[in-house]
Amino acid sequence: MKVGILGGGQLGRMLALAGYPLGLRFRFLDPKGDAPARPLGEFVRARFDDLDAVAAFVEGLDVVTWEFENVPISTARFLAERVVVRPGPAALEQAQDRLTEKKAFQALGIPRAPCRAVDSRQDLLRARTELRLPAVLKTRRMGYDGKGQRVLATSADVEEAWEALGGTPLLLEGLVPFERELSIVGVRGRSGETRFYPLVENDHEEGILVRTRAPAEDVPAGLQKLAEGYLRRLLEAVDYVGVMALELFQVGEELLANEMAPRVHNSGHWTQEGARTSQFENHLRAVLGLPLGETEAVGWTAMVNLIGRVPSASAVLRVPGAHLHLYDKAPRKGRKVGHVNVRASDVREGEQRLRALTRVVMPDGVTM
Amino acid sequence: MKVGILGGGQLGRMLALAGYPLGLRFRFLDPKGDAPARPLGEFVRARFDDLDAVAAFVEGLDVVTWEFENVPISTARFLAERVVVRPGPAALEQAQDRLTEKKAFQALGIPRAPCRAVDSRQDLLRARTELRLPAVLKTRRMGYDGKGQRVLATSADVEEAWEALGGTPLLLEGLVPFERELSIVGVRGRSGETRFYPLVENDHEEGILVRTRAPAEDVPAGLQKLAEGYLRRLLEAVDYVGVMALELFQVGEELLANEMAPRVHNSGHWTQEGARTSQFENHLRAVLGLPLGETEAVGWTAMVNLIGRVPSASAVLRVPGAHLHLYDKAPRKGRKVGHVNVRASDVREGEQRLRALTRVVMPDGVTM
Repeated sequence: MKVGILGGGQLGRMLALAGYPLGLRFRFLDPKGDAPARPLGEFVRARFDDLDAVAAFVEGLDVVTWEFENVPISTARFLAERVVVRPGPAALEQAQDRLTEKKAFQALGIPRAPCRAVDSRQDLLRARTELRLPAVLKTRRMGYDGKGQRVLATSADVEEAWEALGGTPLLLEGLVPFERELSIVGVRGRSGETRFYPLVENDHEEGILVRTRAPAEDVPAGLQKLAEGYLRRLLEAVDYVGVMALELFQVGEELLANEMAPRVHNSGHWTQEGARTSQFENHLRAVLGLPLGETEAVGWTAMVNLIGRVPSASAVLRVPGAHLHLYDKAPRKGRKVGHVNVRASDVREGEQRLRALTRVVMPDGVTM
Repeated sequence: MKVGILGGGQLGRMLALAGYPLGLRFRFLDPKGDAPARPLGEFVRARFDDLDAVAAFVEGLDVVTWEFENVPISTARFLAERVVVRPGPAALEQAQDRLTEKKAFQALGIPRAPCRAVDSRQDLLRARTELRLPAVLKTRRMGYDGKGQRVLATSADVEEAWEALGGTPLLLEGLVPFERELSIVGVRGRSGETRFYPLVENDHEEGILVRTRAPAEDVPAGLQKLAEGYLRRLLEAVDYVGVMALELFQVGEELLANEMAPRVHNSGHWTQEGARTSQFENHLRAVLGLPLGETEAVGWTAMVNLIGRVPSASAVLRVPGAHLHLYDKAPRKGRKVGHVNVRASDVREGEQRLRALTRVVMPDGVTM
């Protein structure tokens, strides 16, 4: 079986590494020549909207999936006419526009922060009054890792944010006080079978995920089931097949949905060594119509992103329980070049190991 | 860093899959065009004794290792003059000849079955008298998976075995009654640091490993340390760097060495999901001079080889805890085309899962 992957980034790379043991081969489509997945299969270098290249790409593939959700929807539909595409274009479409996503949360009864569409300065002024500050102005499309966002703390920030982002479809979202950021990764198979990984706790800095602790500690009774219920609604609403992640804010015993990702997700990387089956293997099992794997955690795991620089492999691997995952990317400020999973028997041992690891990967006194 | 691997079989394939996360790239040398490792790196198709091809192969590599120990020793030496080769040619040389190997066991005080070199019919007759029957006549070179062996149960078998194998250097080995076959996999780093996986129990059929249970049950006190001591002597004797496996016969509270393998080994495949660090990752860590990873088992794991046919992936993955590892090889009688690791919390749950798996992978009533 040959699997086509739209996007040749680190997610595609890790999907392929998880897929070879299942007897699969891979072909990637990516506009960048130095894509991290390149050494791991056939590689078609082309823009996602180059339909001639897409037609050539699809030749001989058994199934297509994606690791990057901002593929043009026209390309997804073009592919779906020619080959099995999982998840299907509907999930892609929903996730590409933050407004559609927020509307889906509302339609499915999933609590979220209040928000308003902003297409003009007038919209912004009205939304600012309705929602009160602080709030976040976000582009509706193509945002990731905190890009395309401005926090409006006071009225003085409004004009500057409009100058920076105005002219493209936007969204103003109320900043709700929350205790912490959690996320849940789930997978749905072709038969409708679903499995969910435990809730994990995430730390972001400047909009970029820096650290995941899995499973999250001190989760109130019922919160796991609540999160699974929300994610299940999202999966079933679009007859989704594959892995989906849902980012959440915890407010006491409640959860507010923040963002969904219709693909394997950075906050699920801990599953590579930390769960009985990784999110990458489970995504492929789902896409191929195979039975899903167990999602229970094995001990306790912390995932630490390597951002902007590659640390010494020796120093990382000297930390007991540490596993290195490099993406073969040239380091650049703010760029994710890899991650480390550090596994331990329990949270106590894990936090010790995480402290040791943090000294190695963030030597410049970055807070933890 | 680019790693060269002599041999492009399933061991090379699994080394590469374990090595990409460490940021490595791979180049393989193999005479077969359809080698399982081929999609996972650059590939040089050439005979191992084609030194022009070997010279081209080594260009730009940082280190060379092997997944196949029957590379000509002249090739290993040729390489060692041009690049770092780990483990070094000495280990290769020792393992290529069963007689040298048996002598090494003796020199290092590692108990083994009695044996005699056989270079003529007269040698065979003398050895047969000295050792008594039953005994096994084996070729000294190039044997694997039970190939090149004949059991001599009675005097009537002697002549037939000589007809079949005579004319090449042989060895007659006394068949010692033993309780079970165990093996131990260990790894030695550049600094001399060693780590050992737990003893595992192996079942062979017609000379081919069919099943490993890890860790072995009911291991008498002291037996793990005894096995580690034997393997440590072998590792240190040749200043070995990398993973080595030692096959053993258990006789009460004693161990007899059977065979060593200077590479990652089939009886270590369970470590992929069943140990904190896989033998493949630890071999690469050693070869690259990186700190070694933890070797403790995670729960209980059975490894079942897929021999001669590829079972239904759905049926395999429906068994809880099952992980499929296919080698992308065309099925052929007696050929290993993959394996399945089935992981469980404990031996009781594991044996249940193993029975379920066995029904799937050996549907023709093969014994278990």
